[in-house]
Amino acid sequence: MYLLKRYEEKKVLVTGGLGFVGSNLALRLAELGAQVHVVDALLPGCGGNRFNLQPAGDRITVSIQDLRNRDFIEQAVAGTDLIFNLAGDVSHLGSMEDPEHDLEINCRAQLALLESCRRANPSVKIVFASSRQLYGRPLSLPVNEAHQVEPVDINGIHKRTAERYHFIYGVYGIRATALRMTNTYGPRQLIRHNLQGFMGWFIRQALLGEEIVLFGDGAQLRDPVYVDDAVHAFLRAGVSPAADGQVFNLGHEPVSLLTIAETLIAICGRGSYRLEPFPPERRLIDIGHYYGDYWKAERLLNWKPQIGLEEGLRRAVEYFREHGEHYL
Amino acid sequence: MYLLKRYEEKKVLVTGGLGFVGSNLALRLAELGAQVHVVDALLPGCGGNRFNLQPAGDRITVSIQDLRNRDFIEQAVAGTDLIFNLAGDVSHLGSMEDPEHDLEINCRAQLALLESCRRANPSVKIVFASSRQLYGRPLSLPVNEAHQVEPVDINGIHKRTAERYHFIYGVYGIRATALRMTNTYGPRQLIRHNLQGFMGWFIRQALLGEEIVLFGDGAQLRDPVYVDDAVHAFLRAGVSPAADGQVFNLGHEPVSLLTIAETLIAICGRGSYRLEPFPPERRLIDIGHYYGDYWKAERLLNWKPQIGLEEGLRRAVEYFREHGEHYL
Repeated sequence: MYLLKRYEEKKVLVTGGLGFVGSNLALRLAELGAQVHVVDALLPGCGGNRFNLQPAGDRITVSIQDLRNRDFIEQAVAGTDLIFNLAGDVSHLGSMEDPEHDLEINCRAQLALLESCRRANPSVKIVFASSRQLYGRPLSLPVNEAHQVEPVDINGIHKRTAERYHFIYGVYGIRATALRMTNTYGPRQLIRHNLQGFMGWFIRQALLGEEIVLFGDGAQLRDPVYVDDAVHAFLRAGVSPAADGQVFNLGHEPVSLLTIAETLIAICGRGSYRLEPFPPERRLIDIGHYYGDYWKAERLLNWKPQIGLEEGLRRAVEYFREHGEHYL
Repeated sequence: MYLLKRYEEKKVLVTGGLGFVGSNLALRLAELGAQVHVVDALLPGCGGNRFNLQPAGDRITVSIQDLRNRDFIEQAVAGTDLIFNLAGDVSHLGSMEDPEHDLEINCRAQLALLESCRRANPSVKIVFASSRQLYGRPLSLPVNEAHQVEPVDINGIHKRTAERYHFIYGVYGIRATALRMTNTYGPRQLIRHNLQGFMGWFIRQALLGEEIVLFGDGAQLRDPVYVDDAVHAFLRAGVSPAADGQVFNLGHEPVSLLTIAETLIAICGRGSYRLEPFPPERRLIDIGHYYGDYWKAERLLNWKPQIGLEEGLRRAVEYFREHGEHYL
């Protein structure tokens, strides 16, 4: 498989590499023979977890560092072939409660990384983990990359700002790709609290046999992507010159929140759900149905999701059953 | 005239009110009978100049404070009817040299102001000074508000981010209007250096009898707005409910940089110009021709520019001839 060859011996930096998607990506890169350097600040609430890289032993170098530490980051990016930039905070509600914190993590830290690249490695390629959140409330479905960008929360605004930073730095030679991720789920996800999306929240509650609360009628559609599929998109984007300067949606067959809850309850053999009206602070930033059109990724990256919802949730539940003490 | 009545006794806060447009606006508001409170941090390079408010005597309250000083700003916004939010840094080149500084001034300070409003005055109306810079290189001319937003520099990215902040805070009740200003010129402008746009730069050089350097062939079109016209747009937006939640271009008849230089040289009776190739750092963020479609402002705000280029430049030159020692 061509990817395997492309990553052999490559020097790769993964920011946010102790987090959910970052750690799964780092582990896969190490399997592919890359020299992987993970940088993670382990900021509270951002999902970093040292246990996530436990399978790698000492094959992955880990630095607990903040992207805003310019001296360190300049050294880290110098000589790197490729940066997978997954550091960030993904909480929508949190960004409304503390927008200045979100600004620090999702804008200033990104600018600091790019400034380091400009100085120490201006020809590097960066794949940036962006978010479908920046579209806001869909005007039409599925949402493609030409859809208007009208974020409904500060996190979405800042993700868009950070995307733009990456492309602006093209004037210095930096090649960038942004993947607009949709709800991702699977092993190593932060499931301890409810601030990193409903997938981790539902998984935790089903595992613990609790009652999952669905807001509204539970019919809202989403397109959850299993983490291995998301990782695959990053790997493709990292070695595809056609991806330079481009944004791509990830996506999957749409499914309702109710179906996701029911599937989880069936897999776990426990738990339940109930419907409840939206709390006002969530209503304000709710986006209704969302599912993305990932035809552009299919065409230019030869990517599409391989893992169905039931299979993905089964793998996630198995992982957390085995390693629950590190996540609950 | 209806505006006059509307502003009488109104409590108005003007951020950046010692700056170029802010001070002209504050003076006009005071004439209209408003209770004007100017807040300005006098940040180096941002154009604040105490002399700008000299004609007001003690009719305008001035606080030298940073928007990021939350305690002070919360007190300042409490009980205010209207905020004209003109604080910011407008240097495109500067934003590329020090993007983190631009982030502080054009994003963090804006968030801090809005957070203060959310806490102390969530039903306030804000008119935000945005910029045509966020459009980037025009795809078609004139540029209307539906034109794509693809800024070519960090300053443009951050202006767009700050616009979005204002509208997101609508969820708390804040009513906002953004005016996308184009090159503005006139009395009280910062003309001392070249970082606040070419208008101030050209005016200074013609006044001093220097040689104006035009990059490229000098044929680039712009639509410079005389400051009294810009002030008028702010006044209209401040009292028009139809403006809530809206962005508006300002604009004027397009004119070439060469014509602007020639007009200035004729008015001043001195100075000269020469053509020179673009320096590389300017070439990267040059946007080619720009002129805006201001039909939306005409329709919803009943605004259009009244002062022609020659008349405006003549007034500017007269002002700086009289008060040059405070600006040169």
